[in-house]
Amino acid sequence: MSLRVALLLIAFVSPAQAAPSRRAPAPDADTSAIRLMLDAQVAAWNRGDLEGFMQGYWRSDSLTFYSGGDVSHGWQAAHDRYVRRYQSEGREMGRLAFDLHAITLLAPGQALVRGGWALELTTGRPRGLFTLWLRRLPGADWRIVHDHSSVAQ
Amino acid sequence: MSLRVALLLIAFVSPAQAAPSRRAPAPDADTSAIRLMLDAQVAAWNRGDLEGFMQGYWRSDSLTFYSGGDVSHGWQAAHDRYVRRYQSEGREMGRLAFDLHAITLLAPGQALVRGGWALELTTGRPRGLFTLWLRRLPGADWRIVHDHSSVAQ
Repeated sequence: MSLRVALLLIAFVSPAQAAPSRRAPAPDADTSAIRLMLDAQVAAWNRGDLEGFMQGYWRSDSLTFYSGGDVSHGWQAAHDRYVRRYQSEGREMGRLAFDLHAITLLAPGQALVRGGWALELTTGRPRGLFTLWLRRLPGADWRIVHDHSSVAQ
Repeated sequence: MSLRVALLLIAFVSPAQAAPSRRAPAPDADTSAIRLMLDAQVAAWNRGDLEGFMQGYWRSDSLTFYSGGDVSHGWQAAHDRYVRRYQSEGREMGRLAFDLHAITLLAPGQALVRGGWALELTTGRPRGLFTLWLRRLPGADWRIVHDHSSVAQ
């Protein structure tokens, strides 16, 4: 089909029929959905549910997790890192809080979230920052596809 | 003008005439432009030209720079932070290298760059990671609008 024919076909579909499939969700709906997902992560963490927390991450080998100078590739590696740091012998998950600085929609289905994190542990109060790249995946909700976290010195 | 009329008008513009204005720059051209900009930053740093290095950043109060647990807002604050850390009494800029892990085009004019940085100083070899959000600004080249950097522990 030539471009010209395709455009003519589009032109004769009435706006009322064509609009719903072409219209992206309202940015506010996306922002709310992202906020809900991150709230759910914090709630999961604070009931000790690491598997629930991990649902916010893209279940893919292409997920990337940057922390300090360490790169993890894939959901499983990110999961195992959390287990090692917060659920292994002598470790605790503590109480997590996020402070969302900005949720920015870059394009339909693409967002950047900037914020701060803070943990209350019996051994201290580590805190730091995160930059998250999120995508709204087909047939799924928003998921973190890249997490860069850093710790305050 | 109704949507239907607008689409009919588009339909009768020949593809040869219509294509250039609708076509985004090839992703490869964007990737190359981003790589060139980052290479220019490294070259500027390594000749001690902090002002040249800073040209890679969006000259706006909305630039954000996250490092460890510290947030800087605006180009001037990011600039002053670099001066404090690398050009003040007893400090040195050293030799900088970037290791680009991924340049990802998220949408026309929106990109994410993930990579590692390493500095050779007389006092040590700090290294770490960065996540950069870049935008191709109207009438300008690609610029960093958000920088999240972390240091290896």
